[in-house]
Amino acid sequence: MFPRLALIGIGLIGSSIALAARRAGIVEHVAISTRSEKTLRRAEELKLGDSYHLSAGDAARGADCVILCTPVGSVGALTAEISAVLKPGAIISDVGSVKSAIVAAMKPHIPPGVFFVPAHPVAGTEYSGPDAGFAELFENRWCILTPPEGTDPAAVEKLSRFWSALGSNVEKMTPEHHDRVLAITSHVPHLIAYNIVGTAADMENITQSEVMKFSAGGFRDFTRIAASDPTMWRDVFLNNREAVLEMLQRFNEDLTALQRAIRWGDGDKLFELFTRTRAIRRGIVAAGQETAAPDFGRPHQHDAPPKK
Amino acid sequence: MFPRLALIGIGLIGSSIALAARRAGIVEHVAISTRSEKTLRRAEELKLGDSYHLSAGDAARGADCVILCTPVGSVGALTAEISAVLKPGAIISDVGSVKSAIVAAMKPHIPPGVFFVPAHPVAGTEYSGPDAGFAELFENRWCILTPPEGTDPAAVEKLSRFWSALGSNVEKMTPEHHDRVLAITSHVPHLIAYNIVGTAADMENITQSEVMKFSAGGFRDFTRIAASDPTMWRDVFLNNREAVLEMLQRFNEDLTALQRAIRWGDGDKLFELFTRTRAIRRGIVAAGQETAAPDFGRPHQHDAPPKK
Repeated sequence: MFPRLALIGIGLIGSSIALAARRAGIVEHVAISTRSEKTLRRAEELKLGDSYHLSAGDAARGADCVILCTPVGSVGALTAEISAVLKPGAIISDVGSVKSAIVAAMKPHIPPGVFFVPAHPVAGTEYSGPDAGFAELFENRWCILTPPEGTDPAAVEKLSRFWSALGSNVEKMTPEHHDRVLAITSHVPHLIAYNIVGTAADMENITQSEVMKFSAGGFRDFTRIAASDPTMWRDVFLNNREAVLEMLQRFNEDLTALQRAIRWGDGDKLFELFTRTRAIRRGIVAAGQETAAPDFGRPHQHDAPPKK
Repeated sequence: MFPRLALIGIGLIGSSIALAARRAGIVEHVAISTRSEKTLRRAEELKLGDSYHLSAGDAARGADCVILCTPVGSVGALTAEISAVLKPGAIISDVGSVKSAIVAAMKPHIPPGVFFVPAHPVAGTEYSGPDAGFAELFENRWCILTPPEGTDPAAVEKLSRFWSALGSNVEKMTPEHHDRVLAITSHVPHLIAYNIVGTAADMENITQSEVMKFSAGGFRDFTRIAASDPTMWRDVFLNNREAVLEMLQRFNEDLTALQRAIRWGDGDKLFELFTRTRAIRRGIVAAGQETAAPDFGRPHQHDAPPKK
């Protein structure tokens, strides 16, 4: 599908694309680039690609598809850096969790004859770096394409087939709608997870040891996404400000209503919400986006080793 | 250890105690009681105990240990109901997620010569009912005992050994401290999980289908605890009001500071928090309360069946 695929950035997502594309047999040469010498060496040790470059331009030169897999804050400068070496007819894409800001940052640097198709694979784990990647990461997950108006439909179709080959379901929407949907399904959840973990850490009359020991009461579920990559998430919030603040406002209004129900002992209001929310999980399990196994399928026996 | 153990209520926790106590070989006769005829029949089909009773008094009569495994709101009336049949020297306990309110509700009905030792096993899954129980639920989880001042140390020690035999680590603290610790490690996390799921359900320009499809971005982690038993959780919030409202106030202050950092583009403040929160998860994994497997060890392949 793409004789030469260039991956700029080789963290969790970049390394998973490398492994999944290789497994699918849809690339001949995978060129990998990262600014960090140490990470590049590690990618080479892991045999993630076919050539390794400290310069993004060296990896992108002659590539049929270039995918930027770096934090959102860096994609504008990177596009400017490689724009001169992009091959006519090439597709340039990304994997960022925000889309309007990425279109604004990248589009001005796309040379004529190169197709710009922004993408967001809604998949990940709490781990980062080239060791964290695995070929199955995108299986049955959704990848959202947000081509700017006027983008060549053939290029969109080609990138769509690429993500399908990695195991994803593909959907198209506008960057603006993407940013609102992800604000509520991803960005605000991360923010409140980071926040509750921070609040718990700052208690003056409850020890850290107590927080950890009794975390099985619910808290530990939040710590998983609060262990996600800090640079990536800082950039997400700085680049999807409007939608995140709007959704946060709604979250706050709803939380204030619950707070009031607790203060006034309104059990019916609590019960009504607690019943309604069960249906959403059932829907997510039915949509194949979650396991129905209790506790996410976490091991429950002393001797059960954690599985990758 | 207890020739006759009575379990009043046979949901997730009651059925898990039945299975774990049997497996440990520390009980001879397990008497099970629940008000629901259907649930009682199901418990019998599952062979969870040795005798089955619609009347709590019939199960508790002559028992060496009686454990109330019902929602927090019902333990006071239940204790009053069975108090006349309790055997001198018996231990009466519970499994409730709040402790001050439970002591206040149960203590007045405890007859002289009966030992009252409140307990809270910090363990569970998002499922409820007698089918949800399994013998490994308490393994390596903490069980907190909150004996009121003046409780016979031998009775406390005996219940402590019971929970150790089920696989738990045991800790003792005051009911008041318990309620504050659990407010931040369990109750507020549940409340904000219920809340974000409710907020997402109420979006007018984002479809339910979109919320479900793109839930792998973080949202789905919250839906697990937001699928917990509504009656149990309503009672928790109504019975730990003070501590929950206090912790919620702190959560809100911290969230407002984050909101402000996003509005003003203060990336350093976000990065600092996002870095600090990773350490807490590492501590929870090190404390044996969580798996280190990515994504909680959820299956990542199409063909991987969910495991119990």
